[in-house]
This record gives sequence, structure tokens and C-alpha cells, in this order.
Amino acid sequence: MTVHHVLRAVENLRGVAVRTPMISSAAVNERLGRAVWVKAENQQLTGSFKMRGAYSALAALNPGKRSRGVIGASSGNHALALAWAAHLFDVPAIVVVPEDVPDVKRETIDGLGARVVTYDRRTGRRDALVHQYAYRHDVTIVPSADDTWVIAGAGTVAWEMIQEVPDLAAILVPVGGGGLAAGTALAATGQTELKVFGVEPVAADDTHRSLQAGQRVSIPQPVTIADGLGHVEPAAIPFDINSRLLAGVVTVPEEAIAEAMAYLWRHYRLAAEPSGAVALAGLFHAFDRLPDGPVGVVLSGGNVDWNSYRHLLDTAMPRLETHAPAVLH
Amino acid sequence: MTVHHVLRAVENLRGVAVRTPMISSAAVNERLGRAVWVKAENQQLTGSFKMRGAYSALAALNPGKRSRGVIGASSGNHALALAWAAHLFDVPAIVVVPEDVPDVKRETIDGLGARVVTYDRRTGRRDALVHQYAYRHDVTIVPSADDTWVIAGAGTVAWEMIQEVPDLAAILVPVGGGGLAAGTALAATGQTELKVFGVEPVAADDTHRSLQAGQRVSIPQPVTIADGLGHVEPAAIPFDINSRLLAGVVTVPEEAIAEAMAYLWRHYRLAAEPSGAVALAGLFHAFDRLPDGPVGVVLSGGNVDWNSYRHLLDTAMPRLETHAPAVLH
Repeated sequence: MTVHHVLRAVENLRGVAVRTPMISSAAVNERLGRAVWVKAENQQLTGSFKMRGAYSALAALNPGKRSRGVIGASSGNHALALAWAAHLFDVPAIVVVPEDVPDVKRETIDGLGARVVTYDRRTGRRDALVHQYAYRHDVTIVPSADDTWVIAGAGTVAWEMIQEVPDLAAILVPVGGGGLAAGTALAATGQTELKVFGVEPVAADDTHRSLQAGQRVSIPQPVTIADGLGHVEPAAIPFDINSRLLAGVVTVPEEAIAEAMAYLWRHYRLAAEPSGAVALAGLFHAFDRLPDGPVGVVLSGGNVDWNSYRHLLDTAMPRLETHAPAVLH
Repeated sequence: MTVHHVLRAVENLRGVAVRTPMISSAAVNERLGRAVWVKAENQQLTGSFKMRGAYSALAALNPGKRSRGVIGASSGNHALALAWAAHLFDVPAIVVVPEDVPDVKRETIDGLGARVVTYDRRTGRRDALVHQYAYRHDVTIVPSADDTWVIAGAGTVAWEMIQEVPDLAAILVPVGGGGLAAGTALAATGQTELKVFGVEPVAADDTHRSLQAGQRVSIPQPVTIADGLGHVEPAAIPFDINSRLLAGVVTVPEEAIAEAMAYLWRHYRLAAEPSGAVALAGLFHAFDRLPDGPVGVVLSGGNVDWNSYRHLLDTAMPRLETHAPAVLH
């Protein structure tokens, strides 16, 4: 895979994906002494960046194969994106999601006419289920990360960021399967001054551990509020790319993720789901290790139920209050 | 006043104001059968559109007069904007705010070095206080709405909206003193197909009543969650413009304002303060009376404390759930 796959995905997504805004806060920039740009993929179609990959993958399938339908598994956002892309191409979709998928994701998938199959997170039978259904219904598997076009589609986020702020010194992205990080790293090809950092919950540090080990390693099923990042091991193609191109992976505790959600609400007036706030948590966590210059932070999604959101911010907001007050806002 | 004042303000604000994004939701547009564009002034410097007017007014003062300082009164956002603009021009500022101003506004004003004078909302002694301090300290009064350059600055919001979506059929804006509505109506000059609607809380319908009476009338001190719109009568210059140029004023109940805040969180992933959500409440309320075509909605600000926000959304969110589910998100 190269940056050319990303450029092809950019073409395919033209007029389809929303060119989401880069949001900056003068107050935050002044306090931190550097420009921070938040890429608001919570305002993307289907509420997360995942539509970029799902649509790119469906666009790349040959029409005969595509018309028989697609299947994918995910904690929610890829499933939602796949259901949406299938709806757009008018082909059947089956999505395999955990039983405890947030209501907001479940309802929207239902509304798009996709067939929903649930599994128990603890058994880890997800991939077997996908293959079983794919075989039985003769449909194509669209992985959430381990696919060239899914990675290329995810890379279009960073491509837009670089177009808008060409002198970015770093981009931070959340890491689940690793597709977004890999796409970002590919999009940054040739930007010699730009470093790409992945950010993972400490509780789901499979990519961090795998990079240290020099090979993909598995961890026990993670328990994290960042439901989109609870992977047990990195996906193969992304890991190959990430091990060559990432500047590093930052790991952040659960409290820092909730604080980043509160910070995004307070200073950017943006609602993020936990997985979507992880990159900002990484910014604060690794602040002293980042190169000088403007930093891009990918807010990857905003699909969260109000009750969970309210609960997390209730807990985290008082901790923010102890920080220095904003000069502006 | 004419559209040329707005164009002058556009020039003055270039490189100063954030060109805030217009946010759209495919899900909402599909459900409503029309394109809705939310102008996200909650992401403006100081957290509301008010900086546009305050900065424009200070830029228009002669430097000698400006250097002696400025004073202004408001429920919070204009005070915040004035404190910020004065900080930028390095001149003293006094701001007169109600005792119950939200903490988030109060703290930021303090942080900017402005002198804060508080008054009791119920006594209505605000204007007397402003004149007393202005006289005693020899500083210039910058009204929150009743000023040519404040109105012109406010009009730059709509000017950007029209630049971005030239075929807008309607723009809805919240009405407090009426400056934003007046600026919007002026910015729309020559757009023969574009109608501008003001939106007020039923509980603070001074402009609505004044338009019906054909002259400015006073109402008792309003009690509304939209703390920025609780005016007892329209400001003079804006009322003159609004009575000539507005297509109408829509009034909305308190519950609808909280529902609009919840809707903005859920479908646009944006945090609005109550006053900032009033225009969207007006969209739903007057939906059948709007001309066909794309509609612009000004989300005028996002300065709200988490506790108030959480409380309002806790109450309103279950009412949203009874609406038809989104096709997309």
C-alpha cells in the first residue's frame, strides 16, 4: 500500500464524504503555547470516520460481487458505516455487533435495513460468526481495519487535514485495529516534518505491546470506556504499516479519556464518544514529547448515548475545573 | 445603516474572527426533506457571535477615545466579547453583568482583566449603572445591540453563510436586543429570495409584541432559560431595521429551547447554550411557514455551565426519543 491508495480513496469519496471542519480554540492554543486543530469526524456521515473506509471498500468491489451483499463486524461504528454504504449502493448488509452496542448505533443500523447479528464480547466468537454467515449467505467480508481500501479511506481524514494545515508537525489518532493510524501514516508520506502518533487506552494496548515485541501479540479482552478500541490484537495489514511508519503509540488511562471528552465539550463545544476523545487525551499525556509546531487531533466519532455521556462528564468535569482557567471561552 | 456597514465589518474582522463552519446532517436533512445549515458560532472566539460586534465597535472608535476605555452591559456574552476586544486593543474595560451570570462567562471575563460590576436582574437598574460608571471613569459605552458597528459586526455571520450557501431561502436567528437579527437582515440585502426570521422565547417576546404594535413596547422582566434573550424591550436601531426587513418573528416555549439543545447535541454533536439553540427551536416551530429551499440556522453561542446543560438535556432528551428515529446520524 502507498499514498496513491489514499489519493484514489479521496477521489472516490469526493461528493460523498463530508469535508469535516478543523476546529481550533484560541484559548486552548494560548494556554498550550501551540496550535491544536481538532478534525471533527463526529460530524461525518454516520457519526464517525468509518464511512470513509466502508464506502471506499464497497466502491472497489466488482459490481457482481457487491450486489450479493457484504458483511462486517465491529463494536458499532464500522457496522453503522457498512450498513450505510450498503444502503447507498442498494446491496444487502449483515453486521455483527456486540450485544452491548450503544443504543444510538443499534437503532441507526436497524433504520438502514441491515441485518443485525449480535455476539457476546466475552466469548471472542466474532470472527467465526462472520465467516460462518459470509459462507452461508455468499456475501463479501469487509473488515473494519484489515483491508487496503478501508485503510485508504481512513487515510483521507489526514489528507484533508494536511491540505488545510500544511505545516502540521504531528497528528494524533486513536488506535483500535490500527486502520486509521495506518491510513494516516500513509497520507503523511512525503511530509518529512510530520510525525504520526497512535493513541490507545492503557486497558487496550495491543498495538503498543505488539510494537514493543516487534510482532503482533494478543492481550486478554480489554475492558475500556472506549468501546471502539477494545481490540485483542492489531490487524495484520495496519500493523505492518504502523510498525514501519508510526512515530510512536501513546497509552492513556480511562480517566484521561473521560477528561478529554469533557475538555472537548467545554473548549470546543463538540460532543465526542470515548473512542473519539482518545487522541486528545494522548495529546495531553505526551505533550512534552511532541515536536514543536501545530498539532492535528482526530476526533474520530461522536456516537454515544446521552446517559453514558452525561455520566462520564459528570465525573470528569470537576477534575477539569482544577486545571488553570481558560484565558478565553 | 446599509449592507455596506456589514461589508466594512467583514473587512475589519478578517484575520480576527474565526470563519465558523456551517454544519449539516444528512440524517436531519433527509428526515426534514430540506437542507439545514447550522452556523456554529459556539466555536467563535469568546464562545459566541458577540465578539464580531464588540471588536467592530472598538475598531471604529477613534484611538484617543478608545484608549480611555470602554464599558458595556449584558447577560454575559457581550460582556465577555467586550472584555476580550478591549484586551486585544489593550484598553481598560468595565462590564456590567447580572449577579447570576453563568460561572463560565464570569470566570473568563475575570481572566481577561476586565472590571466586573454586578447588578440585580429584578431591579432593572442596569442602564443607570452603566451611565454612572461611564461618566465617572470617562469611558465609552458599547451597547450590546443598539449601535451601528455592533449590528454591522453581527451581520458578518449571515454574510459568511450566504457566501457559503448562496441559495439559502431562509435564515433563522435568535432575537434579544435585536442586533443580530438586524445585522442579518442587512447582510441579506439584495438576496431577493432570502427571508430572515427572528426567533424569541415566548417568555421574552418583546420584539414580537413591538412588531405587532408597530412601535417598541416593554414587557415585564422575562424569566427564560435563554439568559441572553431576556430583554424587556427591543433596542432602538435594531427595531427600526427589523420592523422594515424581517419576514417575521417566531416565538418558542421554554421546552422547545431545551429540546433544540438536545437535538443539536444528538444530531450535530454541538453544544449550544439555551439562547444559542433558540433559532433551531424556531425552525421546528415554524417549519410549515418557511419558504422552500435550504435554511440557515444561527447557533449563536455555547457558553453554558455543564450543570445547567446536563440538567436541561436530561429533561429534554426523553422527549426527543419519542420523535421518529434518525435514518442516519
